[in-house]
Amino acid sequence: MIYGRVRGTVVSTIQHPGLKGLKLLVVDKLDPHGKRTGASLIAVDAAQAGVGDHVLVLDEGTGARQILGNPSLPIRSIVVGIVDEVRL
Amino acid sequence: MIYGRVRGTVVSTIQHPGLKGLKLLVVDKLDPHGKRTGASLIAVDAAQAGVGDHVLVLDEGTGARQILGNPSLPIRSIVVGIVDEVRL
Amino acid sequence: MIYGRVRGTVVSTIQHPGLKGLKLLVVDKLDPHGKRTGASLIAVDAAQAGVGDHVLVLDEGTGARQILGNPSLPIRSIVVGIVDEVRL
Amino acid sequence: MIYGRVRGTVVSTIQHPGLKGLKLLVVDKLDPHGKRTGASLIAVDAAQAGVGDHVLVLDEGTGARQILGNPSLPIRSIVVGIVDEVRL
Amino acid sequence: MIYGRVRGTVVSTIQHPGLKGLKLLVVDKLDPHGKRTGASLIAVDAAQAGVGDHVLVLDEGTGARQILGNPSLPIRSIVVGIVDEVRL
Repeated sequence: MIYGRVRGTVVSTIQHPGLKGLKLLVVDKLDPHGKRTGASLIAVDAAQAGVGDHVLVLDEGTGARQILGNPSLPIRSIVVGIVDEVRL
Repeated sequence: MIYGRVRGTVVSTIQHPGLKGLKLLVVDKLDPHGKRTGASLIAVDAAQAGVGDHVLVLDEGTGARQILGNPSLPIRSIVVGIVDEVRL
Repeated sequence: MIYGRVRGTVVSTIQHPGLKGLKLLVVDKLDPHGKRTGASLIAVDAAQAGVGDHVLVLDEGTGARQILGNPSLPIRSIVVGIVDEVRL
Repeated sequence: MIYGRVRGTVVSTIQHPGLKGLKLLVVDKLDPHGKRTGASLIAVDAAQAGVGDHVLVLDEGTGARQILGNPSLPIRSIVVGIVDEVRL
Repeated sequence: MIYGRVRGTVVSTIQHPGLKGLKLLVVDKLDPHGKRTGASLIAVDAAQAGVGDHVLVLDEGTGARQILGNPSLPIRSIVVGIVDEVRL
């Protein structure tokens, strides 16, 4: 799974019906020290995450669909937890 | 999922029957500021996207096949939404 | 999916029975302008592609197995179409 | 699969119920000589691994869920073994 | 799939029961000319490959489990063939 930080939200007017009502977040990938790696992805929010939150992202469709309880959703990446601390 | 911009279309005369009639797009991957990262991919269009549109791409076969309602399509990447704005 | 160009073929004498009779191609990944990105992969041919052909590669096991009609083949990457033109 | 070294643990107070009770590790990816490549990931521990241990990580959801005996867990990466030595 | 060369073996004393008895190989990824790309992975051997052999690696869990005839193995990468020659 991926350690990241929520950077913003995605606003989309035309999208697949299965995505309606889902909150889409832009997440920057972080290294273990919390520094941005330069890569980012778009993930559905399943953890009430806000901008600036450090999060755990699952990047796999089957698991993402199971979390939302809908086996036919067109999603792959989902924020499944808020990370409070990384102990190194 | 991936944030990208439609750069063009792919013209193919010989292709797998399952791909017939599908519109194939070349999509440049973007960073959160809308700047190209240098990477690109080919995706099936499921959002009536045009060249220049900022889009949301699902890069996972199971979800892509479910969107098109055909569990045996040989596809993996699909444009599922038009992105109007990324709020950072 | 991936845009690429066939660079050569792979000759293998010892391989899994499920791969017998399949043509294995070395495919260079291309950017939208048809320039090599430096990366490459090995893919099964399902489009009668020859060396030099620009092709569309599906890089996902489930779809690849469905194309060949055998749910137990040990493959992941498959050439599904010949690309005639990329319109930018 | 991935060769890595456990660098630390992730502390998370808000997370998906399916992740409760699982130990989340930060794992640095290593090259065959045991040198860090610069990349890292977060994985569930299934091998009683501790910080500093060299480990084998499976980065695939279906297998990860089977190890934990729960087909609906929202996980993808899991530490499945302790690596004692890499013989080159 | 991936073209690579076997670089060594992985010795592991504590590992998931499903991995017992499997030979784990360190495989360097190669470019079409047989030159190392700098990346490597760990794969289960299903082709009686030895150190120095050029091999074809399938990097997908479903196919890897089918080869070994066990749908619950925690593996993703598997050496499925010995490559004799890459004709460019």
